[in-house]
Amino acid sequence: MKTLILISHPKFEDSGTQQFLKTSFYSLDDVKYQVIDELYADTGKIDIDKEQAALKAFDRIVFQFPMYWYSSPASLKQFMDDVFTRNYIVANRSLKTKELGIVVTLGDAEADFQAGGPEAFTISELLRPFQAFAHKAGMQYLKPFVVDQFGYMDPTQKQRMLIDYLQYLSAEMPLNLANREQWLVGRLQATKEGKSDEQQQAIDLVINSIEDQQNNVESLKEDVKMIRDQEE
Amino acid sequence: MKTLILISHPKFEDSGTQQFLKTSFYSLDDVKYQVIDELYADTGKIDIDKEQAALKAFDRIVFQFPMYWYSSPASLKQFMDDVFTRNYIVANRSLKTKELGIVVTLGDAEADFQAGGPEAFTISELLRPFQAFAHKAGMQYLKPFVVDQFGYMDPTQKQRMLIDYLQYLSAEMPLNLANREQWLVGRLQATKEGKSDEQQQAIDLVINSIEDQQNNVESLKEDVKMIRDQEE
Repeated sequence: MKTLILISHPKFEDSGTQQFLKTSFYSLDDVKYQVIDELYADTGKIDIDKEQAALKAFDRIVFQFPMYWYSSPASLKQFMDDVFTRNYIVANRSLKTKELGIVVTLGDAEADFQAGGPEAFTISELLRPFQAFAHKAGMQYLKPFVVDQFGYMDPTQKQRMLIDYLQYLSAEMPLNLANREQWLVGRLQATKEGKSDEQQQAIDLVINSIEDQQNNVESLKEDVKMIRDQEE
Repeated sequence: MKTLILISHPKFEDSGTQQFLKTSFYSLDDVKYQVIDELYADTGKIDIDKEQAALKAFDRIVFQFPMYWYSSPASLKQFMDDVFTRNYIVANRSLKTKELGIVVTLGDAEADFQAGGPEAFTISELLRPFQAFAHKAGMQYLKPFVVDQFGYMDPTQKQRMLIDYLQYLSAEMPLNLANREQWLVGRLQATKEGKSDEQQQAIDLVINSIEDQQNNVESLKEDVKMIRDQEE
């Protein structure tokens, strides 16, 4: 599965959050990224045909941006207005069945975004225009990945967030336990390459232990299902 | 009351709807308009200090735009990202107590915008980011003025829409009957200037008749209130 991250950020190089996230997606072969602002930097115009053609190669398209006035920065909107012509999206359904993910970073706590909170509206509500776009394009709208108050995270929290982020970029959706574990096994398999026999055996041991756990979970699920069925 | 219309439209001069609306706001002394795209046309940058200072002179600020991918075109977002600094909006509360109106034009029928309809989400939901902005800025968010399928309107419908639009720009809010009539009387008074005595008398007659109607409505309201009170 191939993923394209379209980043909208007027100061991408200066953003600690963006640079932290950037270090991670180099480790995934099938994930590419593009900073939209850089596409417009030279002439203020982009090559629409080229961008339209390029998008078709990906299965998951991720818009990544800091929330500016309850939406993306202007550069992503400009990209959408320019590249997502009616012909491309509606007549030719060029992005149909692809997934649309959103990675949004917040300076405030996510809990502030709710009725009665200082921001009054939820992230779901504020991102509705993107959801409506996915609906129109026939794309599958993924649950947004929210990074709030990155500056307050300790190193452990950052590492955990990074794993979640990598899974958001490249694991099968939805991100349930089974898909997360499958992703992890895949990543471990990939790291075996070029390692010594001993190291490979150690990794295999970890993989086996994850797969054993998966089997346990599956068997537990079966048990729960049987009990439920008997109750009804 | 002074109103500023901030228009976001990449092809303002070519838009039949925008040009039709434009003919009308010349007739109102206290209404000014600015096409945002023209502000950016020369250098791609705008004079932020100048725009911040200019906005303070107005009581009602109206964002006017065609709906592009369920939001405004990029130029309005760029203007918001540039001009509405945190300092200007949050620290200094520079737009506090001003009104924020939205005039949005749709190619599709407004009725398409609802759950189960082809556009799936309501205009209220899609404009949530603007409402959240108004909330943050301490502005009063006005009920948006929606112009749908302008191309299908007959001349009478267009004229009626134009009156509603002029009232949206310059009448006291909310747009109830009393405020609409007060606006109409004000407009009639203004047209008396420079007219012959005979014409002025004719206009006075119309004004008197409107005011009589208002008194009738007021007295009817009193009656209804009394009946209700007795019922309780």
